[in-house]
Order: sequence, then C-alpha cells, then structure tokens
Amino acid sequence: MTVAGQVHCEIDGALARVCLFNDGKFNAMSRAMWRSLRAIFLDLQNQQGLLCVTVRGMGGHFCAGGDIAEYPEFRFNESALRAFHEDEVWGGLSAMLDCDLPIVACIEGHCMGAGMEIASCCDIRLASASARFGAPIARLGFPMAPREAAQVVRAAGELTAREMLLGAVVLDAAEMKGRGFLNQVAPQEELVHAVEQRLEGMTRLAPQAARMNKQALRALARGDGVSAASLDSYRYADSAEHREGIAAFLAKRPPQFG
Amino acid sequence: MTVAGQVHCEIDGALARVCLFNDGKFNAMSRAMWRSLRAIFLDLQNQQGLLCVTVRGMGGHFCAGGDIAEYPEFRFNESALRAFHEDEVWGGLSAMLDCDLPIVACIEGHCMGAGMEIASCCDIRLASASARFGAPIARLGFPMAPREAAQVVRAAGELTAREMLLGAVVLDAAEMKGRGFLNQVAPQEELVHAVEQRLEGMTRLAPQAARMNKQALRALARGDGVSAASLDSYRYADSAEHREGIAAFLAKRPPQFG
Amino acid sequence: MTVAGQVHCEIDGALARVCLFNDGKFNAMSRAMWRSLRAIFLDLQNQQGLLCVTVRGMGGHFCAGGDIAEYPEFRFNESALRAFHEDEVWGGLSAMLDCDLPIVACIEGHCMGAGMEIASCCDIRLASASARFGAPIARLGFPMAPREAAQVVRAAGELTAREMLLGAVVLDAAEMKGRGFLNQVAPQEELVHAVEQRLEGMTRLAPQAARMNKQALRALARGDGVSAASLDSYRYADSAEHREGIAAFLAKRPPQFG
Repeated sequence: MTVAGQVHCEIDGALARVCLFNDGKFNAMSRAMWRSLRAIFLDLQNQQGLLCVTVRGMGGHFCAGGDIAEYPEFRFNESALRAFHEDEVWGGLSAMLDCDLPIVACIEGHCMGAGMEIASCCDIRLASASARFGAPIARLGFPMAPREAAQVVRAAGELTAREMLLGAVVLDAAEMKGRGFLNQVAPQEELVHAVEQRLEGMTRLAPQAARMNKQALRALARGDGVSAASLDSYRYADSAEHREGIAAFLAKRPPQFG
Repeated sequence: MTVAGQVHCEIDGALARVCLFNDGKFNAMSRAMWRSLRAIFLDLQNQQGLLCVTVRGMGGHFCAGGDIAEYPEFRFNESALRAFHEDEVWGGLSAMLDCDLPIVACIEGHCMGAGMEIASCCDIRLASASARFGAPIARLGFPMAPREAAQVVRAAGELTAREMLLGAVVLDAAEMKGRGFLNQVAPQEELVHAVEQRLEGMTRLAPQAARMNKQALRALARGDGVSAASLDSYRYADSAEHREGIAAFLAKRPPQFG
Repeated sequence: MTVAGQVHCEIDGALARVCLFNDGKFNAMSRAMWRSLRAIFLDLQNQQGLLCVTVRGMGGHFCAGGDIAEYPEFRFNESALRAFHEDEVWGGLSAMLDCDLPIVACIEGHCMGAGMEIASCCDIRLASASARFGAPIARLGFPMAPREAAQVVRAAGELTAREMLLGAVVLDAAEMKGRGFLNQVAPQEELVHAVEQRLEGMTRLAPQAARMNKQALRALARGDGVSAASLDSYRYADSAEHREGIAAFLAKRPPQFG
C-alpha cells in the first residue's frame, strides 16, 4: 500500500515551515497527511527555540480538499467515518489550534474544503490575488463535520460559511479579504516575499508574549471566558523578557529577546 | 376588521417563494403577517421535496419595518407588547431560524427594522444597489426586543447593530456588503436574475447535506457548541446521496441527487 | 509626585465630552488617567439629563498606549501588575462598558494598545483618514491582559487582534474600516464635523430606548443570552416616550423626547 501525500516540516532557525504535498491532487489531504499534520504540530509545540510556523502547499496550490480517491474505503461506514473526522481530521486541526506558536498561512491557488479548515486554524492569512476559496462539499453529497464547520465559521464568518456550504460558492482572494478572512492579498509573484517579511518581523518580537497571547486568544475563541485565563496571566511580571522590552523602550533602543 | 398585509408562499418545483406584501406600506409587517410568516415556515419545514426558500417583498421593497398603524391598539400595554414580540414576531423569526432548508433573501428598496430582522434570519442575502438598510426605531421611542436584536447583531455585526439602534443610521447596499451583511450586490435590473441563478445552482446540491449543514450551523449560532450536534453527525455514512456524490466525483460526471 | 496625564470631562447640554490628555506622550494612559476614566464614567452613568458621550484625545492623537515611563515602578511585581490590569485598566474599561449612554469615539492620529482598548469600549467609532491603529506590545515584551484582549477581539475581530498582537502590525484607517472596526472614516479636517453631526442626530432620539438598547447589547456582548434580559424588556410599554414616538410618526411630525 502506497501512502498518498505527505506533510513536510522543515526547521529554519526559529521558524518551522510546514508544507502540504499530494502530487497531482493540488495537495488534497489524505488520511496519512492528517495524521502527519497532527504529529508535526504536537512536535513543534514541544520544541525549544521556535518562534513561528508557516503553512503552505507545494506547487502553486494550498490544498484542494480531502483526497477523495480514499473515500470509498471508509466513508460509507458510520463508525469509520466518525473516526476519520473526529480523530484524524480533528486531530490535525486541534493540534494546530493548540499550538502556542503563531501560525502564518501562505495561500496560493486552491484553498477548498480541508484547505479552508487548515487555513482557518492559522492565526494570520496571506494569499495571492489568484487564490480561490470554497467548501463545495455539498456537490460530494455530504455536510461539513460540526467541529470543522465551527472553525470555518469562526474564521470566515457565518455569512461566508453558509454561502460556501449551502451554495457551493467559490470566492476569490479580494472577496475573501473583504469578508475578513485574509489579512493581506499580494500579487502572485510577491506573496512569498510578503510572507517572509511578516515572519522575519515576528521573530524579533517577544516569544513569551506570543505564547501567552495565543493562550488567551484560544480561550476566547473557545468561549471559555477570561476568568480561568486570568489566574496565571501575570506570572510574567518579573521575567527577563518583560524587563528587556520595557528597558529597551525607555532607552530608545531595539529590544533583544532572543 | 380588515387584515392588513399578507405573506404569500408559492411552491415552484423544489423551490418555495415567500413574498411579503402590505400594499402602500412598503410591506411593513402587520401582526397577521408575522403569524402568517410562522405558519408558512412551519409548513415548509414539513413538506417533502423542497430544496430552497427565497424571501422577497412585493413592489420594489423588501420590508419597511412594523405596521405602525396597528401599534396604538396593543403596544402601550406591557403584556400585550410582550406577547407581540415574544409570540408573534419571535414566532415568525424562530420558524425561519428553525427551517432546515437554505433561505435566500432578495432585497430591494427599504430593508428596515422588521426587514433587517427577517433578512438576518436568511442564510444568504443578495440586494440591489439601491437598497437601504436600518433600524431607526429609536425615532419611534422604543428599543429593539432582545431576541430580535440578537439576530441583527449576529448577521450585521455589533458595530452596525449599535450604529443602527443607537444612531438611527441608514446604510446603503455597498456599505452593508462591506459590513459583511450581504453576499452580493447587483444592479437593480440584474438582482432577480442573480437570485434565480443562485437558487438554480443550489437545487442541484445534495439536499441531505444542506439540512445537516443547517442544523450544525444553527447549533453554532445558538452557542450550543458541537458536542451534541456531533452525536448524529455521521448517520449519513451509508446514504444513497453520500454514495452518489463520491461516485459521481470519481467517475468525473455530475451527481444526480434528486 | 506629579500626576502624569489627565482625563477631562466637559458637560455640554445633553452631551458629555471626555478627552484624554497626556502632554508630549500622545495621550498615553497613566495609572491616574485609568482611575480618572473610571470615575468619570461612573459619574456620567448617574447623571440625569445626559444623552450621549464622546471620547477623543487632545492634540491630534487619540491615545498611543500606556504611559511606559511609569512601568518600571510596578510592572515587575506580579501582584502590582495584576492590580494594575484588573483594577485600574479594567476598572476604566468596565465603567465604559457599563455606561448606559451611547459612546462615540473620535479617533485621530495614534490609536495604539490602550487606545485600541478604549476605542473598543465605545459604541460607534469615527476616525480621520490619517489615524493609525495597532497594539504592538509584543515589542514591549508582554502580552495583552485577557479581559482587555477580549474587548479588542470583540470590536476589531479575531483576525485583526491576532495580527496586532502576534505580528505587531499597524493598520491605517481605511484598512480598519474594511476590517469592521470603524463606522466611518473622514478626511482629517472633516472629522470633528462628522462626529458633531452624529452626536446632534443622536440627541434627538429616544433616551430610554437608547439605554434599553445598550443594556440588551451589553448582555449579548457578554454572552449572557437573552432570557434574563427579556424579563424587563417590555416595561416601557406605557411610557410617555413610547407613546410620543408612535404618536409623532402617525401624525407625521418629528417626535419630541426631551
């Protein structure tokens, strides 16, 4: 049995570069890729010295959805289908959501179905002007799993999620910028540079602050409220990073957090 | 006693066309119309063979608000006022929200007060470029009822809801597109065609998937979380519709869900 | 000990004008200013005859953040840091959120960090085209406190909050309008006039309706749901304001709520 598709992760200094790859299928997510996505993000969460993650697809596309060639093997059995969505897909997405490092999506070409779900679990999203977005799975005869739909609704908004799921509509990057899903749209040839500039800027920011912001924003996104989050929210008071940031500002010099 | 205004419902194959009509009042909602709106959506929910609903107003306007001529009869008595909002208005809106069919709003002219509330309970919203939106009921000396305000906040966003309710501001279609309330704005003469194209496309999608998506999106909109929704989320595994969608994709032919 | 910075409040008929002032620091919020902000809003909430509040900054800027010169005094001690955020900052912001009067922000120049937080607690936000927005505190080595981040997420959206907190990105007024944070962007020389026009229009609206709308919108923003809010929602039925609004409409004359 050949394993269809792969998720690569390359460590480049303080930066992890995650890349979706399923040759000839616009990086459609196979079951192996979902499991690999989970393993990679669990690993990144535990590595020391990392500051940022970027997620992109190989060959001019982000991700076109699920790897439908695999579907007849398991989708028509209820418990296998449940295990696929709740364990494999949600396993991958929840590992992204639980990662304390900022995640930047670099989106070219197709960003459909599973691609929308993965992009929705990134913190910052940049896309090329020619990227296209949708979740036309109503053409495939099935609904989006609720946990996955919740992420698309959170990131793309209810109006857009309903239009994609109930109308199978595909939207372009300019429209998705207007809908509040994208931070920036760049011409195709400038996208990689725009993403690299963001990443470079982010690696000079305070790492502990990023982790704490991610934890607080995650609690808010989950609807957990702020009471629990607040308990440990001020332990950073006496940290070197906190002292350095304020000292550098007052001395009018750039901070050195590294 | 004459009954002011009517809500019509015409069944056109798999499509239900709901039309608001209150002659000379830009389709302002009378009490009879709210009750009729509820009866129609309860009926649509139980009919077999329907795939989509569209809601529009007669005569170049969507709906200008409530039928104020009726207000002196009941609004100054607390229990009558409560019954109006909690039973009649909320009865109509909640029947829309509880409908498992996708609902497309076709909005021309005035979309004010009750019109904003009804549009907020649709899934997809198209408007003509000359449509105008607001909820200037602070001029009428009363606040929006909380359940109704919750729908406007959900659909139009807090910023816009506050501006409409606290500032009595009226916004045009382009602005409401930018605010995330509208999926599409079309020139007046192209609006009906744009809506019909959407509906036609939607009737070719998987009906069971649409119903399940609507149920999951409703649970999310209510803040119910996904745990309960997830229990039944995979019963469609062995369904004909699911098999057909995937088989058609792999055979590179259009699916036949009908 | 000199007290750095001040918050002024001027009563102008039915209008309260709150002004942030910290000379030479673009109105950065000192601890005294946060306490003063709280005292002012608690006082406004209890005054009779007020209809609206506007918040602006002195000298061409809204607010550039916190007064960092004060930070070494207290930020490196956990309990002092907690008291600052939970009592002083949150004291000020929560007094704004608890105010039943509509609050209009008039934003020029820098709107950063604490400025974003204060603006997020206003109901309606107008800005000059040259205003700039961000929360680049990751450069200062610390995260945003969770209760404060919750307000920025609510008002600016998750995408923008994450970009500001994790990327230290600064955005201009046109971008923030597109992101759904601003109701209106005006050329610098027209901003004050645009704000005054809004305020003037708002003072002619029904005061009791505004208060009740603010209470319902606050409950929704807190995620309290509508059941509790609904209990008292119809006590206004027999009020003079309600009768006047409807009588004026039916008589085709402007209402007189004052």
